[in-house]
Amino acid sequence: MPQTRLDTARIRAARQVIDPAFLDTPLYRCEALEPALGCAVSIKLETANPVRSFKARGTEIVASLLADHGPQAVVCASAGNLGQALAWSGRRRGLDVTVVASRHATAAKLDRIRALDARLELVDGDHETARKRAAAIARRDGIRLLEDSLDIQTCEGAATIGLELADSTTPFDTVLIALGGGALATGVGHVMKDLAPETEVICVQPLGAPAMTHSWHQRRVVTTDSARTIADGVAGRYPIPAVLDDLLLVADDALLVQETSIIAGMRKLHDHAGLIVEPSAALGIAAILENRDRFAERHVVTIVCGSNVNIDDYHRWIATAPTHTS
Amino acid sequence: MPQTRLDTARIRAARQVIDPAFLDTPLYRCEALEPALGCAVSIKLETANPVRSFKARGTEIVASLLADHGPQAVVCASAGNLGQALAWSGRRRGLDVTVVASRHATAAKLDRIRALDARLELVDGDHETARKRAAAIARRDGIRLLEDSLDIQTCEGAATIGLELADSTTPFDTVLIALGGGALATGVGHVMKDLAPETEVICVQPLGAPAMTHSWHQRRVVTTDSARTIADGVAGRYPIPAVLDDLLLVADDALLVQETSIIAGMRKLHDHAGLIVEPSAALGIAAILENRDRFAERHVVTIVCGSNVNIDDYHRWIATAPTHTS
Repeated sequence: MPQTRLDTARIRAARQVIDPAFLDTPLYRCEALEPALGCAVSIKLETANPVRSFKARGTEIVASLLADHGPQAVVCASAGNLGQALAWSGRRRGLDVTVVASRHATAAKLDRIRALDARLELVDGDHETARKRAAAIARRDGIRLLEDSLDIQTCEGAATIGLELADSTTPFDTVLIALGGGALATGVGHVMKDLAPETEVICVQPLGAPAMTHSWHQRRVVTTDSARTIADGVAGRYPIPAVLDDLLLVADDALLVQETSIIAGMRKLHDHAGLIVEPSAALGIAAILENRDRFAERHVVTIVCGSNVNIDDYHRWIATAPTHTS
Repeated sequence: MPQTRLDTARIRAARQVIDPAFLDTPLYRCEALEPALGCAVSIKLETANPVRSFKARGTEIVASLLADHGPQAVVCASAGNLGQALAWSGRRRGLDVTVVASRHATAAKLDRIRALDARLELVDGDHETARKRAAAIARRDGIRLLEDSLDIQTCEGAATIGLELADSTTPFDTVLIALGGGALATGVGHVMKDLAPETEVICVQPLGAPAMTHSWHQRRVVTTDSARTIADGVAGRYPIPAVLDDLLLVADDALLVQETSIIAGMRKLHDHAGLIVEPSAALGIAAILENRDRFAERHVVTIVCGSNVNIDDYHRWIATAPTHTS
């Protein structure tokens, strides 16, 4: 069992406080995708829920713990999905939720955060600026700061996906996981290494936001000056040391993919699987497209982790990809 | 308990032979849709599975029964979804599957039937022509004819959706069900009337293919000379008397909707729920759009029953609907 910060028994226990709407998500073979990809592909679909991403698995745990001590306030920085999920989990438990986001974050995500009655503070700069501002608010107001990937509950929530994958009756060889801050990768990776150690755990990050992948390969924290990718959900620049330590224990590889491959992946999921997904959710398909030989004849699970897009941006992106007939 | 051809205990038992990939599908509140619709809306999503429709719930039961008696042959007529589902269920059990479809059926559905190794026979004419041809093949070859909605297993399969709705911890007022041959409506309707009789069961059919709805209102079989709708999955003209008898016992109402409303419904699901759906799956949203006062303040579940579309047709359709900003 990998000696990460995570514990499988605690993950199983945490699962009990998560609203069932976020659990036992579809896992299914998608043969229509396979001729284009050259391998067997199954989809773990994390978008058919009230917040259209996996993030509520973690915020349900966080909000449940906070609510146990009466009405509380909590603040987080978010590219949008964590904030939406925290707003959802907090609203139903009477928590006072503040989300800090970049002014350049995806508008559709910001709209949903507002609609869920959270306080939304926008900052100039990118997600790293939002992280600093959220920390400053927490210090100023003496309230709980939720830090994605650093807070163990965000990893435990994501890890419940791993429990569902490990329980699958259909054997598979590889799981492809979008890599940003690392909660999803370390969470799912921990459980796979514990319960299904023969399964290959591969992280995928955009070439334009490669900080965590560079860190994993160099086995030390590597930061970047900028993050340029349409995959807004994984566009961090400052990896968290404790998360990197865990990732080093559970990931078998970390791949970088080009923007054109992310877009091609979104298009494939659209044309052949009938799925609208956000760019981060297409990283797995992008990795297969760029590494056909590596995955040939294997059975790969890709976690479709979110579908919150500005719909006009989405259609502009996929219009630039090869069509479904090619 | 309604005295239909269905039996809730038998439905529970039948559930055991259905591949888990088709069961316990997502059921979730979709608040982003609600400002446009004026009521609380939950989605029961039947598209995130290997055949992208609910039809495999029934074909799993059919194929399982057939396979119990050794390798068998089976033929069905289909607008596409039943055929795809039967091909999937039959392939894994070594059955010899023939699907008869109209030459004008949705190409994407026919492609998937072929890809799943079924024999596909195309006929000139519409779905009713295909039904006659399938019956002739069954007589000629002495093989099992699967007739959608008439064969009780197709209704029992659909009825397992009702079990999941009745088990929901979230109370709701109304379920909106696409009405074609009637398997989905009688199946789900039977279970709701048995286990949650306070829930309103409303069927929705296109104005351009109204045979079953006219039959329900007139309490006798009414056929039509033509069926003109983009909702190919529900475009029958000859209601089956036994199915109508059941529908009369379990449906509280049957509504007809215009093609423009179906398209508007598809567009709403696309823009606000991030879902690509086929026209039949948008009938429920179309009904809300045409009857806002009736559903105002109610909590409505709509069964999103399929997502198999020709993607170019789909985009041509939704391009004609009002945009998400209006």
